[in-house]
Amino acid sequence: MTGPDFAFTIDATEGSARAGAFTTPRGVVETPAFMPVGTLATVKSLDPVELRAMGAQMILANAYHLHLRPGDDLVRDLGGVQRFSGWDGPMLTDSGGFQVFSLKSLNTISEEGVEFRSHIDGSLRQFTPESVMRIETNLGADVMMQFDHVIPGQSAHSASKDASERSIRWLARCRTEFDALHAVEGAPRQALFPIVQGGIHADLRREAAAAIGELGTAGGATPWQGWAIGGLSVGEAKPDMYAMLDVCDAAIPRDRPRYLMGVGYPEDLLEGVARGVDLFDCVAPTRFGRTGAFLTATGRVNIKRSEFRRDPRPLEEGCGCSTCRRFSRAYIRHLTAAEEVLGLRLLSLHNVHFLIALMRRAREAIRAGTFSAWSRDWLARFHAGSPQATDS
Amino acid sequence: MTGPDFAFTIDATEGSARAGAFTTPRGVVETPAFMPVGTLATVKSLDPVELRAMGAQMILANAYHLHLRPGDDLVRDLGGVQRFSGWDGPMLTDSGGFQVFSLKSLNTISEEGVEFRSHIDGSLRQFTPESVMRIETNLGADVMMQFDHVIPGQSAHSASKDASERSIRWLARCRTEFDALHAVEGAPRQALFPIVQGGIHADLRREAAAAIGELGTAGGATPWQGWAIGGLSVGEAKPDMYAMLDVCDAAIPRDRPRYLMGVGYPEDLLEGVARGVDLFDCVAPTRFGRTGAFLTATGRVNIKRSEFRRDPRPLEEGCGCSTCRRFSRAYIRHLTAAEEVLGLRLLSLHNVHFLIALMRRAREAIRAGTFSAWSRDWLARFHAGSPQATDS
Repeated sequence: MTGPDFAFTIDATEGSARAGAFTTPRGVVETPAFMPVGTLATVKSLDPVELRAMGAQMILANAYHLHLRPGDDLVRDLGGVQRFSGWDGPMLTDSGGFQVFSLKSLNTISEEGVEFRSHIDGSLRQFTPESVMRIETNLGADVMMQFDHVIPGQSAHSASKDASERSIRWLARCRTEFDALHAVEGAPRQALFPIVQGGIHADLRREAAAAIGELGTAGGATPWQGWAIGGLSVGEAKPDMYAMLDVCDAAIPRDRPRYLMGVGYPEDLLEGVARGVDLFDCVAPTRFGRTGAFLTATGRVNIKRSEFRRDPRPLEEGCGCSTCRRFSRAYIRHLTAAEEVLGLRLLSLHNVHFLIALMRRAREAIRAGTFSAWSRDWLARFHAGSPQATDS
Repeated sequence: MTGPDFAFTIDATEGSARAGAFTTPRGVVETPAFMPVGTLATVKSLDPVELRAMGAQMILANAYHLHLRPGDDLVRDLGGVQRFSGWDGPMLTDSGGFQVFSLKSLNTISEEGVEFRSHIDGSLRQFTPESVMRIETNLGADVMMQFDHVIPGQSAHSASKDASERSIRWLARCRTEFDALHAVEGAPRQALFPIVQGGIHADLRREAAAAIGELGTAGGATPWQGWAIGGLSVGEAKPDMYAMLDVCDAAIPRDRPRYLMGVGYPEDLLEGVARGVDLFDCVAPTRFGRTGAFLTATGRVNIKRSEFRRDPRPLEEGCGCSTCRRFSRAYIRHLTAAEEVLGLRLLSLHNVHFLIALMRRAREAIRAGTFSAWSRDWLARFHAGSPQATDS
């Protein structure tokens, strides 16, 4: 029943890379795209107006965090996470799987779900596929993620298999609950994305993709509106990650958007696009901003370096972001040294803009048929870097 | 020689209150006006674009803080405090007198100046009238304040007299140094404002005003382009402060803007306007923002109150600021509880806008001849408050 609200069209391809448009109830997302992360319904330090101005089209929020504070029922009563946060464009909520499984000693996993203690007040909580669907329906974002069993990136085959198969059983329960919740009149218009797990094991990734595909169309249902690839960029080697993306590229339907979860380093974005990924998210650009780091085409640099003390140049020459159009490295270094909030704002703004603009250029290159060459040159320059590039 | 760059015109008066325009090299300030404080060349958490959008016309920076970090020579080399900070409108620098005299045990006062230890690294520094003029000339703001001897608000007559007379001797030295610095080709276009001190002693205030006036025109010089009233809102009782404003109103020339330093509570702004004050500044609106407090026409309120947890209303109904036009109390309370930077941004923005808008309405009321009645009603409502008003 959510079908008519969602669509995905592909305008151009080059190898596995595609340029397209993902339509959601709240608007269209041009792909490939980087989605800034607003964990607590705010992209740290930034205003929705700034996100819109820099070209952000879809942003994330997190079910685990918003469930604990301020509460997903409160967000629902205030009109859903978009009205609540003042972001009127497309939005996606992560299920919180990553969070509850990261709480190491604080969680107990069973087939039913996960018991964990709140990181805020230590209270005992339980997430099940069903409860997470209720939370994400309360939040009301356009896209909600399944609840999955997340494990460390280097996990052995057996552990990866167990987690992947549990994630698929949980996906079935998510789907049942999602359908029930959305059969109700007045329910928010949402799509549920499954997550392909399987660690760094090609056979598990393939098996997961096949099982998820079957689940999606069971009983003649509309296929999934989009697919996510999870459990990467969590400690595994880069070649392993890229190999898994190749496997998923072949195993996941091409007619739906693919979302590579938690990946947001510039080089990984381009490697992902080359392997057919359409959507990315990562907290890195705002986290970098809080440490003084900023992204440039020749690598990551830290504004605290003494050489920037009197530097009148923008963070990156030629950058069109509202930080670089107005402020010098010297000023931003001063703000950072003085721990002024505007410093982390300006750095975060530049960094988020950097990734959004990178994906905009990737779209243009795919449409022009030059993605492969442009991407190769871009990566060579980024990896070679300037003398600054080695500093973070 | 700075005369042609500065002008003050009065469009309307009502009693001692005046509506006018203060012209500076960087633009015109409609008065009465509230000037947001950007101590370290940033109004805490806010972007110059936001300040401009909310109607800010002139902002402050601080010579003491910028001298220590990043250094006034650096600011000069980067084009002055306005180019450095991205604020292209009128700007004023405070001399740092308030800061160095606040460092209690860390300072040694002599006729020559003040020795003090940097609050950043403990290094020994000296401020003299001459060195402060050099610092403020390096910063290059439109208006620079004299270096004065600041004492506690409740000081006895003898201590107040000593400090006031020293401040006047220092003013003479400031003027000499200022003139020498600005006789140089390419010097920034700046005006030096004297500060009337004298504590809560009417005779000292009158004597100071008279002596300052004589100093201003000594040798046929252009009179001061503006006058400041210092040493108020520093611990004295409100009636004492208002009485001193009455004294100053009568003692200071009416054809120049009067700036009441460090005063920024809403009630004090209106009481000041009624006594002929044109310019105000205070860190309160951004400091309030960092504690969760926000201003309303019925008093100061704290967003952390539990009753705001699900409150869909803006901070203040009918407020035109960009916070109130877009965000609910519930959302801002959530951001504040989660210590998200956007929370203090939105609160600071509202609070600074509140004082700027209050002065805009005061101007309109003076022009309409309704200031006295409007101000009385406004103050009655503000002091009476709603049940919320007692909370801060």
